[in-house]
Amino acid sequence: MRAFSLLLLSCLSAAAYAETHRLRPAAGHPTFAVRQPVLTVQPGDVLESESLWGEWYEKASGKWPGEVGPIAIQGAEPGDTLVVEILKVRPNRDTAVSTQGGSFGALVPDEGTAMLNETFPRGRYIWKIDRKGMTGTLELPKSAAKSLTVPLRPMLGRVAVAPKGEEEFGGLWPGNFGGNMDAADVREGTTVYLPVFHPGALFYFGDGHALQGDGEVCGSGLETAMDVAFRFGLLKQKTIAQPRFEDAEHIMVAGSARPLSDALRIAFVELIGWLVADYGFDKAEAYQVVSQLAVIRVAQMVDPLYTVVAKFPKKHLPKK
Amino acid sequence: MRAFSLLLLSCLSAAAYAETHRLRPAAGHPTFAVRQPVLTVQPGDVLESESLWGEWYEKASGKWPGEVGPIAIQGAEPGDTLVVEILKVRPNRDTAVSTQGGSFGALVPDEGTAMLNETFPRGRYIWKIDRKGMTGTLELPKSAAKSLTVPLRPMLGRVAVAPKGEEEFGGLWPGNFGGNMDAADVREGTTVYLPVFHPGALFYFGDGHALQGDGEVCGSGLETAMDVAFRFGLLKQKTIAQPRFEDAEHIMVAGSARPLSDALRIAFVELIGWLVADYGFDKAEAYQVVSQLAVIRVAQMVDPLYTVVAKFPKKHLPKK
Amino acid sequence: MRAFSLLLLSCLSAAAYAETHRLRPAAGHPTFAVRQPVLTVQPGDVLESESLWGEWYEKASGKWPGEVGPIAIQGAEPGDTLVVEILKVRPNRDTAVSTQGGSFGALVPDEGTAMLNETFPRGRYIWKIDRKGMTGTLELPKSAAKSLTVPLRPMLGRVAVAPKGEEEFGGLWPGNFGGNMDAADVREGTTVYLPVFHPGALFYFGDGHALQGDGEVCGSGLETAMDVAFRFGLLKQKTIAQPRFEDAEHIMVAGSARPLSDALRIAFVELIGWLVADYGFDKAEAYQVVSQLAVIRVAQMVDPLYTVVAKFPKKHLPKK
Amino acid sequence: MRAFSLLLLSCLSAAAYAETHRLRPAAGHPTFAVRQPVLTVQPGDVLESESLWGEWYEKASGKWPGEVGPIAIQGAEPGDTLVVEILKVRPNRDTAVSTQGGSFGALVPDEGTAMLNETFPRGRYIWKIDRKGMTGTLELPKSAAKSLTVPLRPMLGRVAVAPKGEEEFGGLWPGNFGGNMDAADVREGTTVYLPVFHPGALFYFGDGHALQGDGEVCGSGLETAMDVAFRFGLLKQKTIAQPRFEDAEHIMVAGSARPLSDALRIAFVELIGWLVADYGFDKAEAYQVVSQLAVIRVAQMVDPLYTVVAKFPKKHLPKK
Repeated sequence: MRAFSLLLLSCLSAAAYAETHRLRPAAGHPTFAVRQPVLTVQPGDVLESESLWGEWYEKASGKWPGEVGPIAIQGAEPGDTLVVEILKVRPNRDTAVSTQGGSFGALVPDEGTAMLNETFPRGRYIWKIDRKGMTGTLELPKSAAKSLTVPLRPMLGRVAVAPKGEEEFGGLWPGNFGGNMDAADVREGTTVYLPVFHPGALFYFGDGHALQGDGEVCGSGLETAMDVAFRFGLLKQKTIAQPRFEDAEHIMVAGSARPLSDALRIAFVELIGWLVADYGFDKAEAYQVVSQLAVIRVAQMVDPLYTVVAKFPKKHLPKK
Repeated sequence: MRAFSLLLLSCLSAAAYAETHRLRPAAGHPTFAVRQPVLTVQPGDVLESESLWGEWYEKASGKWPGEVGPIAIQGAEPGDTLVVEILKVRPNRDTAVSTQGGSFGALVPDEGTAMLNETFPRGRYIWKIDRKGMTGTLELPKSAAKSLTVPLRPMLGRVAVAPKGEEEFGGLWPGNFGGNMDAADVREGTTVYLPVFHPGALFYFGDGHALQGDGEVCGSGLETAMDVAFRFGLLKQKTIAQPRFEDAEHIMVAGSARPLSDALRIAFVELIGWLVADYGFDKAEAYQVVSQLAVIRVAQMVDPLYTVVAKFPKKHLPKK
Repeated sequence: MRAFSLLLLSCLSAAAYAETHRLRPAAGHPTFAVRQPVLTVQPGDVLESESLWGEWYEKASGKWPGEVGPIAIQGAEPGDTLVVEILKVRPNRDTAVSTQGGSFGALVPDEGTAMLNETFPRGRYIWKIDRKGMTGTLELPKSAAKSLTVPLRPMLGRVAVAPKGEEEFGGLWPGNFGGNMDAADVREGTTVYLPVFHPGALFYFGDGHALQGDGEVCGSGLETAMDVAFRFGLLKQKTIAQPRFEDAEHIMVAGSARPLSDALRIAFVELIGWLVADYGFDKAEAYQVVSQLAVIRVAQMVDPLYTVVAKFPKKHLPKK
Repeated sequence: MRAFSLLLLSCLSAAAYAETHRLRPAAGHPTFAVRQPVLTVQPGDVLESESLWGEWYEKASGKWPGEVGPIAIQGAEPGDTLVVEILKVRPNRDTAVSTQGGSFGALVPDEGTAMLNETFPRGRYIWKIDRKGMTGTLELPKSAAKSLTVPLRPMLGRVAVAPKGEEEFGGLWPGNFGGNMDAADVREGTTVYLPVFHPGALFYFGDGHALQGDGEVCGSGLETAMDVAFRFGLLKQKTIAQPRFEDAEHIMVAGSARPLSDALRIAFVELIGWLVADYGFDKAEAYQVVSQLAVIRVAQMVDPLYTVVAKFPKKHLPKK
């Protein structure tokens, strides 16, 4: 990511007077789409805000509060790449909720994989969040282990730009615009790169998970509201096809499709393209090297498209 | 795995006079099947041997040397579980080979996913193995990074019992009998559990990889011969449906199917069943807990069936 | 479909003064969405119109003309079923166009099934349409058969209502709202049933194919503009989950998903539910009978979701 | 198929003294594999025999009787194509059995698509066969239609050669060797072409279905024993990759894979290759023409691999 990083630095240095914006979101949106921005920021600016808490978190039949945004990034044009440094993702409530069963989840029939048999019973689990100790605790009344306390790993399920063209995807959808990727890599310290399809990019976020296992197999993580902070940047005239992430250890690509095999293919084809375009790899040699060093995270296998994250270790990237 | 471990200990204590066998394999077998054993061992015994080197490693058109075995474990009966502690997996050659392209690999049309277009060019890459430093080096003449040196993580692509019934699967197949799972978790320090379908279990092994990335996307790891050592055990009348692994950190299940979504489902359904049967979890509560804590490895997406390993952290298992 | 038919008759008899509307569409829409209707009709009314011809049909880089609509059906409410009798689908041009290759089609890598290798060359084929003889002719300069003349079977690739909620799907998408199902059964003499998600239903149509094989494997049929006529009806408070069709021989359900296996499951689960709800079948007995008598059409395997049509022969439905 | 037909004729004329063999099978085999032939025939010879009836047909826990064979065809060598004209497939019993539910079938979780929820109840349905009228009748005590009588369409679920190499597939498997394709096109009047992998080809048959719907979604057709007759031929040094069929109307290819999308791809890639190799089509033009004229049968979506049959109408093949 050095090529990216250098460009980003130049953006940031240009942003000598970078501002910090504070946004207290009122109501969320149920879809990712082109809309009037709630805020416009400059590249280099920081946004401090929070993801939404709502009825869904309070009761079984409650409505999902929706996504926050869109935030317009001044100067973003189709063909650019939006850079979002995630400075903060921290739970701001004392409970988190996970639901399972019904017709949602990787291990039960769902709307995509319909079946004749009875589905798995619905369940709603309330986890207690210790924000100081950063742990979550669940009572397990029916199990030998009567309760379980585990460390949290807060993340954002959804970061997105407005999708290409006039399409408007519901909040459950991931795709090349980002969206509901439910990737545990979208956390503090990670930089997210998203393709820009519309002027201003129109950034959305939401769906905090205090913790989530790989695959999110039951259909939800420890869902709760988060305090968040982002720093925005732009890579002008740098076009990417799929969402990319970068943290201290890896460069990563998120591919979303059904079945899972196809999500993996999308992620790897883009990752190899990245190595070729930005790191001077021959395509066939990149294929060989990626095959020996890649790390794969199955982000989720429950949403309308499944998401796989293909990672390459930065320590094995050539110096530039 | 404490339930397992206790049973295993009792096996081992019975094996007060455990022997160490040394097997220098002559020729390998092209399939996993019921055959006359090359060696019979007692539970508790140790086997020191090596995986096969052959023509395949020497030239592009060379024949695969096949798998070593079968080893019969005295007293193993259908319905039991074979326990294989992996004591050693170490490269014993100075080169390793990886091939890619043609009609094999996750990112090109293959025999399962046929397409009309031209396929990716075949490539054959010779990695230099430093056995002392435990690194591998590949020349990259066409790339900016003219070469790459990386740490090795030796593993066995294939550990198997003879498949159920009269079926006889070629060496490329994984399945509930183990086989060509190409799971990087099958390495020194891991214990492998396999269902027993035939008297003696009839254990096979082979296909050493000095290194392999998740997904093995190009179709092969750093293929080389390995010095190996195993200690065998039996869990009498303990029946499992899919291969299980255990190391210091995780209990794991390997599921094999196409597409990848179905491999993941098989692995998780068995993992949840394991938590219910051996760790006192209620099924719905196990589903919830697994969803928040699971780690997934996509072992490979290139063989006739793809393999996913679902892992649960041992530190969050209840004490027993 | 007798339950349906009776209700429909009562609709129609109410429509004693059924009108025939003529709509010459100006410009089409690129998505299926809630929009201001271009026309409002009563149940029982007939619409005579045509699907759009545009740049796409004239040149390789031409823009798709979009879908005609939406037509509002007075009195349609969420939870109802929209009934569309297809009275006419006839080509109104002397040429039809089919394109193939690139990154679209069932037999090449596409946006959903990305691969590393070079894709299949793009091709653009102009078929000559004989509207009197109802045949199509293609020159085949590179083949032994220097040309091919075949009978036409005109159909509409797209019939839709506005999708549920605020989602807005591009014209290539099929789904439970109908859309780009590319089902050859959507032709003269067929009645289409679509779930109503918004007041007025908001009906769209377009994408005429003078001919299309099962699976539409190259990605397009013989695309041309069509003269069309529809008669609209409503089944009040009759809720269906997926698009249904009915012709002289079969009742049918269209299921759309990736991979194709899941599209088939959706179609059959809905078909069995239909037999249970409207024809007095026990669920298990319906499963048995459907398994012995079903006819399946793979409508298309090229769009963002694939479409399978599951059919049951009307002659084996119980009399009511 | 003219190229084929001419070759076949020359085979047959060579067989001036063609024999008719009668084989009353004793016991069947549970796998498709290389075995000592039960009979050796000459190209041009006719075999009259029957598929096996056994315990499975009599009671719920009964064992499957297995496949008849292998029949060796004198002179068949690897790289040749075996030709099997199906002269007769007729039920020879007064009942047929279909089972459903449990962990087998397209619409319930199965061994390949495991799920957490309870599966669909098992059912066993006894159909009454009228061999004169060629109809089947099922009582439907729980449905409004108290019974159903339908015309039979007898077929063979399994025709196979011994699979390549040393692999040995259980009777439920289809593949490039044929096997359990459950294709309704394998019926009286159809010619089946199978690749030869071993000297003598080693032909197997079994699994008669008096009737079966597309997809065989519940997991079984109207299973019963059949009187059969075949005429064998050979296409020397004609190599095919997948099973092919031919009847009065279509040339066809059967592709077997999971998911269903991949079975379809295999069938079409082979069908287009056939048009190119034997009918003088340019590959791109064949792709175009197949896309407009193909007929697809989803043979079954229940076996370890799913089977799709891609058909091209013979009336649109060029004259040769």
